[in-house]
Amino acid sequence: MRAVDCIHKKRNGGELSSAEIAFLIKGYSSGDIPDYQMSAWAMAVFYQGMTEDETATLTMAMAESGDMVNLSPIRGVKVDKHSTGGVGDKTTLIIGPLVASAGVPVAKMSGRGLGHTGGTIDKLESIPGFRTELDRETFIAQVNDLGLAVIGQSGDLAPADKKLYALRDVTATVESIPLIASSVMSKKIAAGADAIVLDVKTGSGAFMKTRADAEKLAAAMVAIGTQVGRDTAAVISDMDQPLGFAIGNALEVAEALETLRGQGPEDLTELCLALGSHMVVLGGAASSIEEGKRLLRERLNNGEALAKFKAFIEAQGGDGSVVDHPERLPAAPARIQVLAPIGGYVAAIDAEQLGLAAMMLGAGRATKDAAIDYAVGLVIVKKVGDEVTEGEPIATLHIREENGGTASVVDRVKAAYSIQSEQPSVKPLLLAVVTKEGVMRLAEGN
Amino acid sequence: MRAVDCIHKKRNGGELSSAEIAFLIKGYSSGDIPDYQMSAWAMAVFYQGMTEDETATLTMAMAESGDMVNLSPIRGVKVDKHSTGGVGDKTTLIIGPLVASAGVPVAKMSGRGLGHTGGTIDKLESIPGFRTELDRETFIAQVNDLGLAVIGQSGDLAPADKKLYALRDVTATVESIPLIASSVMSKKIAAGADAIVLDVKTGSGAFMKTRADAEKLAAAMVAIGTQVGRDTAAVISDMDQPLGFAIGNALEVAEALETLRGQGPEDLTELCLALGSHMVVLGGAASSIEEGKRLLRERLNNGEALAKFKAFIEAQGGDGSVVDHPERLPAAPARIQVLAPIGGYVAAIDAEQLGLAAMMLGAGRATKDAAIDYAVGLVIVKKVGDEVTEGEPIATLHIREENGGTASVVDRVKAAYSIQSEQPSVKPLLLAVVTKEGVMRLAEGN
Repeated sequence: MRAVDCIHKKRNGGELSSAEIAFLIKGYSSGDIPDYQMSAWAMAVFYQGMTEDETATLTMAMAESGDMVNLSPIRGVKVDKHSTGGVGDKTTLIIGPLVASAGVPVAKMSGRGLGHTGGTIDKLESIPGFRTELDRETFIAQVNDLGLAVIGQSGDLAPADKKLYALRDVTATVESIPLIASSVMSKKIAAGADAIVLDVKTGSGAFMKTRADAEKLAAAMVAIGTQVGRDTAAVISDMDQPLGFAIGNALEVAEALETLRGQGPEDLTELCLALGSHMVVLGGAASSIEEGKRLLRERLNNGEALAKFKAFIEAQGGDGSVVDHPERLPAAPARIQVLAPIGGYVAAIDAEQLGLAAMMLGAGRATKDAAIDYAVGLVIVKKVGDEVTEGEPIATLHIREENGGTASVVDRVKAAYSIQSEQPSVKPLLLAVVTKEGVMRLAEGN
Repeated sequence: MRAVDCIHKKRNGGELSSAEIAFLIKGYSSGDIPDYQMSAWAMAVFYQGMTEDETATLTMAMAESGDMVNLSPIRGVKVDKHSTGGVGDKTTLIIGPLVASAGVPVAKMSGRGLGHTGGTIDKLESIPGFRTELDRETFIAQVNDLGLAVIGQSGDLAPADKKLYALRDVTATVESIPLIASSVMSKKIAAGADAIVLDVKTGSGAFMKTRADAEKLAAAMVAIGTQVGRDTAAVISDMDQPLGFAIGNALEVAEALETLRGQGPEDLTELCLALGSHMVVLGGAASSIEEGKRLLRERLNNGEALAKFKAFIEAQGGDGSVVDHPERLPAAPARIQVLAPIGGYVAAIDAEQLGLAAMMLGAGRATKDAAIDYAVGLVIVKKVGDEVTEGEPIATLHIREENGGTASVVDRVKAAYSIQSEQPSVKPLLLAVVTKEGVMRLAEGN
């Protein structure tokens, strides 16, 4: 078998066999197949696509290229959740305890963030004392005891995916739905998931700019899951602004606490219930999405979700008192209001720009080894659809003056807001759900 | 400027600017842009093509990536000829002296062959004493004196093309018309051509399988030439069998001598007159193709073309007496007849297979440093359209028994012949001519 023949076959629209895909991924992992052949193949895939069989084979080949986490000592169906990314995405902080409180085990390995704000691990580490490095036995015992543990990613998960993704990034071959789908799914499968719920964003601020593309990506991931025996569901949501109000590590933990108390922002709560209800259904704790939602709402209202979060914090060495005293979370010494440059209605908020603003304040990492300031960030005051008058606060920066750069951050936040004279129509948050049964459209929209 | 942005632009069907193409080629030459980006770009070009401007810019960037031969000390228009390849292609041996005898200077740098039979340089070196290494001054003086010199390629011509071609070869990105066209033209321009005549083959035995593709390739090369100020014309010919009868170095020299005497094979003579007439027109020695052909036919008939070949051999140190005594060329000690396995009509002869057969006899190089046996080769007895009876000779092998492998060569030659019961329709050799005025179709055909 020769790589050039595999490239040629795909270039001409052919379907690669399982053996050919395994040959490519094994050869690429071992270094026998060079980058220049994989990038040519990836570009051919960009144009020709891949069949469901090819995509599933590629996914498993990448998943099996490194360590495969074995979660079988944990009782129950291990349901993982993945988001296609988003600034101010604190859904994992909420969904973890929420779903665990409904009886579905959550054994989550999560990454640190690069750029924007931190990742879930960074956010949790803003809680005083919280440890994200547990050994395997402790991790599994905690999930069996408590239903929930979150640790930093360790081991060498799907290294072929990592290598291929880095190559695609510099060869303009990222935007291929089967390649994106197999990349996401390979990591979830290597991390030991039995079932997967996907949070797919669409809109100008998201990676998938159109709803049609988001649906295609979701369908591709669900098809992979179905083929490889991991029940998968996807929720497609609109992203013309960040979820909730807070961007910044401790600020997001505080917002997650409010949400777990049943008093969180409406959009964030709605998305967490949608994703969570799919998780409890796939985990076997509810027989329908409606039942799942009812169950989860009950856990928010009766305090069980919040109590689960507190127990989880304490189990991982953190100060559980922050649950009742969020003021004990790291707090920035100073605040600045960002004022509306003109009056009108907020039509859109560029989440990417707000993420960069938070990073400039110190909430994220510009480079891999940079330190994070857990306290800083920003809180949105005016969201899409809100009316503002000129000079009225639209956001609050939580700053540490010695971090510097505040003036340019203020400009960036202003620039992130689109303010127009007409009141925009309010767009629904949840657009569609994709399961192995097909696409269910919940609302019209782009 | 970043390579990934150039790839992205081309991937989405955009046109790269001159600066972007120059950036890619300079960066690739210097090693700043890695193979994996160039292969992704080449695959994007495979699908999206290139505009005439892009193709011309790429051609010049590759031509200028190494030495640019300066032929300006030679008087007159320097017209070069290029063939898209072909087994048993001895046209340069004939056209060189023929065109020079009509007053158009031929200053040719030629390569050695790899695989099949040798290149033009190897064929000339089969003439006892012939030297193909002349210093620059001698080369130029000889062209000014005699109108003709042929030397081995020296210097570093179009190294970016060489590097890119080697990459395309292993990434399934060879078959792109603008990339093929710019590769050919960059080398001719680096070699100092003022004008270029292209011999483009089509048919099952050729690189361009269909006439439509051959016309596209020819048009792309003519467009480049026009854009960069090198008048270019292309002759498209059918290649369902080798030209003439001889395959093998000294055997081909002998056939070239016959042709220069006006007694050569009809197909070979016809193609040489077609290519040569374009050369004399571009070189300013004739005002029309018809006039050019008349002029060249006269040179074949009055002995001037043959006399030019003799003078050329002697100027380069060779034994000019081979012109009148071809038996003084290296001759193989033994001959074997290949007999028709069945009776019928010859429908096609696979030139590639005959080329491999000749190589196996010792006429070509399997590896770069292998030695060539100038004497061996094969002579076709039956060509397409000929009737054969079972057991009748179809080809003669000229062998040196210690080279070995004769039995398998006999089988290969037999397999190269397609013999069928119905008489095939005779296909015309010359299909079309492409100049900057457009495509002129000379005959119907595939």
